[in-house]
Amino acid sequence: MTENILSNIPTTLPEELTTVLQEGNGVRIERIVSTGHRSPDGFWYDQSEHEWVMVLQGAARLQFGHHVVELVMGDSINIPAHQKHRVEWTSPDEPTV
Amino acid sequence: MTENILSNIPTTLPEELTTVLQEGNGVRIERIVSTGHRSPDGFWYDQSEHEWVMVLQGAARLQFGHHVVELVMGDSINIPAHQKHRVEWTSPDEPTV
Repeated sequence: MTENILSNIPTTLPEELTTVLQEGNGVRIERIVSTGHRSPDGFWYDQSEHEWVMVLQGAARLQFGHHVVELVMGDSINIPAHQKHRVEWTSPDEPTV
Repeated sequence: MTENILSNIPTTLPEELTTVLQEGNGVRIERIVSTGHRSPDGFWYDQSEHEWVMVLQGAARLQFGHHVVELVMGDSINIPAHQKHRVEWTSPDEPTV
């Protein structure tokens, strides 16, 4: 009945791992695990969906234009649809969830 | 631009503290802090909204009928609309987020 989001986290992954935890009514809740992954140079996400992100473990740096935002445990950020962004860095030391 | 969900957590509260972090498009993201609070005896939530909950810190026990579910850090649970439930217990030792 419950699901622990910090369990069953691979320590190395060929690419970012996204798992859908819940979906419906126009909402999707995902767990994203990165083990040092970053967006390719020059790649920008341009999504039709709004995205609200929270870091549960590890650390990440998101780039918005020339601005870089660092996220550590507990940090959240709201990314409105079509706000271009990329994952500039994720921690190589532990999986970032 | 970022907001840390584990910052500015009161250690004692007269009652449960709910803060809306984001709202729109039929979705509301809330932070709920409990410092030992529980639902009154015989009280049951019967919500028209679906609720997905994750524990970031502390611990809680939710009651569904005669069934009690314990949630610790990283545990998540989906509570469909109108599934009656109550907060049977939250940790008295640290704020539960």
